[in-house]
Amino acid sequence: MLTPTEIDTFLVDGRLDSLKGLVEPCVVMDCEGMSADEWRSILSEHNPEILVAGWKTPSLPEDVLTEVAPALRYVCYLPGSIRKLVTRKMIEDGLLVSNWASSISRTVAECALLLALGCMRKASYWNEQMHNQGGWKDGTTQTQSLFERRIGIHGYGSVARALIPLLKPFTSKISAYSEGVPAEIYEQDGVALSDSLESLFSDNEVIFEIEALTPEREDIVDEAMLRRIPAGGTFINVARGALVNEDDLLKVAREGHIQVGLDVYKVEPLPADHGFRTCHNIMLLPHLGGPTTDRRKDAADQSLENLKRYKRGEPILSPVTQEIYDRST
Amino acid sequence: MLTPTEIDTFLVDGRLDSLKGLVEPCVVMDCEGMSADEWRSILSEHNPEILVAGWKTPSLPEDVLTEVAPALRYVCYLPGSIRKLVTRKMIEDGLLVSNWASSISRTVAECALLLALGCMRKASYWNEQMHNQGGWKDGTTQTQSLFERRIGIHGYGSVARALIPLLKPFTSKISAYSEGVPAEIYEQDGVALSDSLESLFSDNEVIFEIEALTPEREDIVDEAMLRRIPAGGTFINVARGALVNEDDLLKVAREGHIQVGLDVYKVEPLPADHGFRTCHNIMLLPHLGGPTTDRRKDAADQSLENLKRYKRGEPILSPVTQEIYDRST
Repeated sequence: MLTPTEIDTFLVDGRLDSLKGLVEPCVVMDCEGMSADEWRSILSEHNPEILVAGWKTPSLPEDVLTEVAPALRYVCYLPGSIRKLVTRKMIEDGLLVSNWASSISRTVAECALLLALGCMRKASYWNEQMHNQGGWKDGTTQTQSLFERRIGIHGYGSVARALIPLLKPFTSKISAYSEGVPAEIYEQDGVALSDSLESLFSDNEVIFEIEALTPEREDIVDEAMLRRIPAGGTFINVARGALVNEDDLLKVAREGHIQVGLDVYKVEPLPADHGFRTCHNIMLLPHLGGPTTDRRKDAADQSLENLKRYKRGEPILSPVTQEIYDRST
Repeated sequence: MLTPTEIDTFLVDGRLDSLKGLVEPCVVMDCEGMSADEWRSILSEHNPEILVAGWKTPSLPEDVLTEVAPALRYVCYLPGSIRKLVTRKMIEDGLLVSNWASSISRTVAECALLLALGCMRKASYWNEQMHNQGGWKDGTTQTQSLFERRIGIHGYGSVARALIPLLKPFTSKISAYSEGVPAEIYEQDGVALSDSLESLFSDNEVIFEIEALTPEREDIVDEAMLRRIPAGGTFINVARGALVNEDDLLKVAREGHIQVGLDVYKVEPLPADHGFRTCHNIMLLPHLGGPTTDRRKDAADQSLENLKRYKRGEPILSPVTQEIYDRST
């Protein structure tokens, strides 16, 4: 149940045929613009064991497992956010669900690096000056390099760990902080462990926010935390907007002592009148961290591997558990 | 003979004291706004053996070695382009000259990576859309990652070699082409050698122009060469504007099949009415590749090392030879 665009970007280079070979009989349908009633009758008619789904697949009816399609065992969702498609109750009732999980982490890490390099060179400012203002540098132009900088990473999941190898050619001064991650994990990666989130922000010049969002972590990056970043420092968020108090961030960014790079926001799309849009030392991207269009095939490969495992009766990789469901957005 | 700004950015963290300790007696003078006559009389009065110079140091009089300051043996120039300060004849006559040489290469390589990542994500486009147009991505948004891409590098000097370790975490498919570089050098770095410049452009998706400018290489990247880049590819120039036929580049870029990132131009500052400024799939920076302000200290360290070597009677690192002078801009 995918759109032609989803097929053409996720299931490229023979991946659609591989998928058909794995789940026989397989019916490929275009769900673009499908009504809830149509969807219900299609589910009822085919009563599939496996549903391979994408962004445009309509929500599963609440009684899908009991009434509409009782054979359904596994929802293999190619993208990430499955809350619109599947309810928590369906997972509680035993429905197996997978998504792109950490297959996209390296592209999010790449986006974090881009934002840091871009903020430190003021690249977006200069690109705009060059295009629209006839601009050129002068004797007062200030730029910064990532080389030999002290880096602090909040969070230590798959994106943070994918970022480490991208940073290593620039600096060996990498610290991280994430509650509950054992010290030996950091050691393996050659990363120093900060004592607290406060010291992570105080002791480093470039801060990457890559922590998972939990209710306790909402607004964890507030004015006091942001003021710990040394003058001239850089703050990057590629995780979730709700980790940061956006009013505080805007206030601190407007003072001009730090550079900020954001890919994520509390409300997405970012409202047209949001203060971030008028603050020019914030580099803004519209949540395009990962995956890039050309790497959607990585997500497809993860799904194909899971379909293979499902068919062999093996556990799938990174199932969406109730806990992961609760954390997801 | 430096400005306060040059001292405050190059000779930071005790480097000015180190310099004074190395060249005794040492007179530190501010050359900001100095006339040619003042400069001539200061040179004549002090008749220095060593001149440590910066961007604002006035040109040396043509008769500096014969008449004005016959004791002068070594010009230790902290920045890069020494053509304004020193004539070729002075080098022919035995004046020793050094500049920042390859101490800045890694920051230029960093700028090249930033331009590639920025072009592939359309980061500057999106930053501008987000700030000025209330923009947000939609279903048609296309982005690219550097992961697993085929990279082609034209040139194999210190910047190219500094770029390799920054690219390695993204891809192992790195090729290079530069006439006269022995094959074993590429092998050492794990880089494939292209047969020709033509095949470098045809066979790769992201092309970095980092070759040294010689008269034969002027306009070497022309329309035919640019059309060899596969559709969707990326062309980055952080070397010299004159390597590229800018009319051809503008023509090809306007067609929209490749992304382009530029830090250098035939005429700098880039003229206000240059066509590049209205072509929005060219990411533009105002020649700020290297060094960044915070890494000018690397150039100072290179100069301090050279002053030490000079004092010990040892050969200096990377002297500006007549050949290097001829190639420099």
